[in-house]
Amino acid sequence: MGHQVPEAGSVGIVTTATATLFSVENPLRMSNGGSLGPVEVAYETYGQLNEARDNAIFICHALTGDAHAAGFHEGATRPGWWDNLIGPGKPLDTDRYFVICPNLIGGCQGSTGPSSINPATGKAYGLDFPVLLMRDLVAVHRALIRHLGVTRLLAAMGGSLGGMQVLQWALDYPEDLANAIVIAASSRLTAQNIAFSAVARRAIMTDPEFSEGEYAANGANPETGLSIARMMAHITYLSEDALTEKFGRQAQPAVDEQGLGIHFAVESYLDHQGKAFVERFDALSYLYLTRVMDYFDPFADPDALSRLAESPVRWLVVSFDTDWRFGTEHSRRIVRRLEHAGQPVSFREITSPWGHDSFLLEIDDYHATLRSYLQRAQLEVRS
Amino acid sequence: MGHQVPEAGSVGIVTTATATLFSVENPLRMSNGGSLGPVEVAYETYGQLNEARDNAIFICHALTGDAHAAGFHEGATRPGWWDNLIGPGKPLDTDRYFVICPNLIGGCQGSTGPSSINPATGKAYGLDFPVLLMRDLVAVHRALIRHLGVTRLLAAMGGSLGGMQVLQWALDYPEDLANAIVIAASSRLTAQNIAFSAVARRAIMTDPEFSEGEYAANGANPETGLSIARMMAHITYLSEDALTEKFGRQAQPAVDEQGLGIHFAVESYLDHQGKAFVERFDALSYLYLTRVMDYFDPFADPDALSRLAESPVRWLVVSFDTDWRFGTEHSRRIVRRLEHAGQPVSFREITSPWGHDSFLLEIDDYHATLRSYLQRAQLEVRS
Repeated sequence: MGHQVPEAGSVGIVTTATATLFSVENPLRMSNGGSLGPVEVAYETYGQLNEARDNAIFICHALTGDAHAAGFHEGATRPGWWDNLIGPGKPLDTDRYFVICPNLIGGCQGSTGPSSINPATGKAYGLDFPVLLMRDLVAVHRALIRHLGVTRLLAAMGGSLGGMQVLQWALDYPEDLANAIVIAASSRLTAQNIAFSAVARRAIMTDPEFSEGEYAANGANPETGLSIARMMAHITYLSEDALTEKFGRQAQPAVDEQGLGIHFAVESYLDHQGKAFVERFDALSYLYLTRVMDYFDPFADPDALSRLAESPVRWLVVSFDTDWRFGTEHSRRIVRRLEHAGQPVSFREITSPWGHDSFLLEIDDYHATLRSYLQRAQLEVRS
Repeated sequence: MGHQVPEAGSVGIVTTATATLFSVENPLRMSNGGSLGPVEVAYETYGQLNEARDNAIFICHALTGDAHAAGFHEGATRPGWWDNLIGPGKPLDTDRYFVICPNLIGGCQGSTGPSSINPATGKAYGLDFPVLLMRDLVAVHRALIRHLGVTRLLAAMGGSLGGMQVLQWALDYPEDLANAIVIAASSRLTAQNIAFSAVARRAIMTDPEFSEGEYAANGANPETGLSIARMMAHITYLSEDALTEKFGRQAQPAVDEQGLGIHFAVESYLDHQGKAFVERFDALSYLYLTRVMDYFDPFADPDALSRLAESPVRWLVVSFDTDWRFGTEHSRRIVRRLEHAGQPVSFREITSPWGHDSFLLEIDDYHATLRSYLQRAQLEVRS
């Protein structure tokens, strides 16, 4: 393609910026006691912050997302991961809103993570990177909005791990955001949720190339373990019916005999998912960010509950009916907690055949819900 | 324990027998064209074959089962895997029935499998072992009953992969068995079912110790990959609620800090499951026997359907309501096929919180269903 001509509805060509939000001298104070500095954060913005500074929407990405949510990087043929949602005239209308999306700390797309250089040693952190909790991700998000001159967000929103960040943020700092949009998320992983992530981490950490997390220094990469982790997780991102509809029991076109290798189309698809993933994601980031989810249990904190009673935040909670990773029961649990605290909550269960991944897709009811919620939110903020 | 005193209801001390059912000269003709010889089969029997030879019940085991279904091996402290079902006064009452249980070919507990010696090379078969299909398992079962002097079974029964063998057997050789008992099984794996097994196989085959299947010759064992396969599969054997009830979000007692290693009880449990499994199971057997299930699709064979119209077999199909590996929909599909062919089918969905593993457990309604079905079956066979 070479040169990309932005189409109507696209935010066009975008670039990723980087901000140094914490330094060695003024490090991020971690919620479990350690510290981290410097902390660099890669982020993108779309649209313009208005004079009242009340039109900012903050996007928190999911486990394997990044700062590139919309538009096209120069020369790229594929847009950002939430491009169907963000742009002129889209539900996150960049003619109305100023949209911010950072890469998470602990991640591997420009923000400080376990494969960044540890200034204390001059080598990549590896397993010396501090264990992250949800509050650490939120602390960095807060520093980023201050850096951008925003004191109160119109909304923070995100799906899956993204929704969990929004939940933590709104519970801890309700004055930071007028609206919290929590999509396909959970306030408390089940044993089964944890189990899937535990096996994924096991596959990564037992890959001989992992080398106790020092693979980068060895010029190696635990691709085998990381691809197995991704293949397994990917099964949980799609509904059983979606896999059946996409692949059924079809054999790969090139395959004509029955053996132990790749025979069925679904096997080839997973193989491709695994291989593509290791090109763009870091094994240590996968370990740290899955663990953030395992430990997340914000309603267990009595202080969060007492803050909630005074909170001015309005909530939209969205689930998808075929999601079996963080299904509707997870969202209902969040809604129950908020309602018991007297909070204003809109809850929508969206019908979609695609399972957990639905939060990334262009589904009419889903997009209509977000569009109208945000329009009403903007009217309320201005009234 | 040292010396085991059999308790009431136990078949007592048992030993595993071995029969050579096919030889190099008279090999097993495989359903996809190859041949295999010799074929040795390890098996156990409980109770006595009566003079009319009409009281034999054949047990087909599941993926990781073996011939030791009931009673105690000399000095053992744990009984066979289906001991709660088999014994004097139990649903498979060994005072009434003659129960036969072999280890599957392709397995690793005494029957010929990929880690057996290939007479052509003097080394273990490894990946030269022929790909198995369900009909190959059935062909060996048929040879075993002939060896034992049984021409017609009162019933063949099995759970999961065991139920699939029963289904294939009853469709291909309806004269061999008066009753087919198909429990927690499937006639056709879904893309999701195949996907889970594909990732498990990937974990095994990418373990550096696997060495293209020649690990035994190297004095090695792909324990890491096999344990990952088991951990992942184990998640699918239990219902989400069962995992929650057993473990919830409890931390391991010895753990007091949050890190990347084992923290939650469910992680410790899976770790234990993985470690225990590699002590008793062979990685190549896991590859071959999971693949048997992937390729299974017996109703796709028009000959099977036409035989079915004339079949004298009576059917019992059982599912468990919380099974999400081969849930009730899989059983209903089998029932629909049989009923459309005019076959007599009893179908029971049993309520159990335990998911797929329920077929191994002592659940009142389940055991009562099997007991009464078999008692009626015996009356019918004698009338």
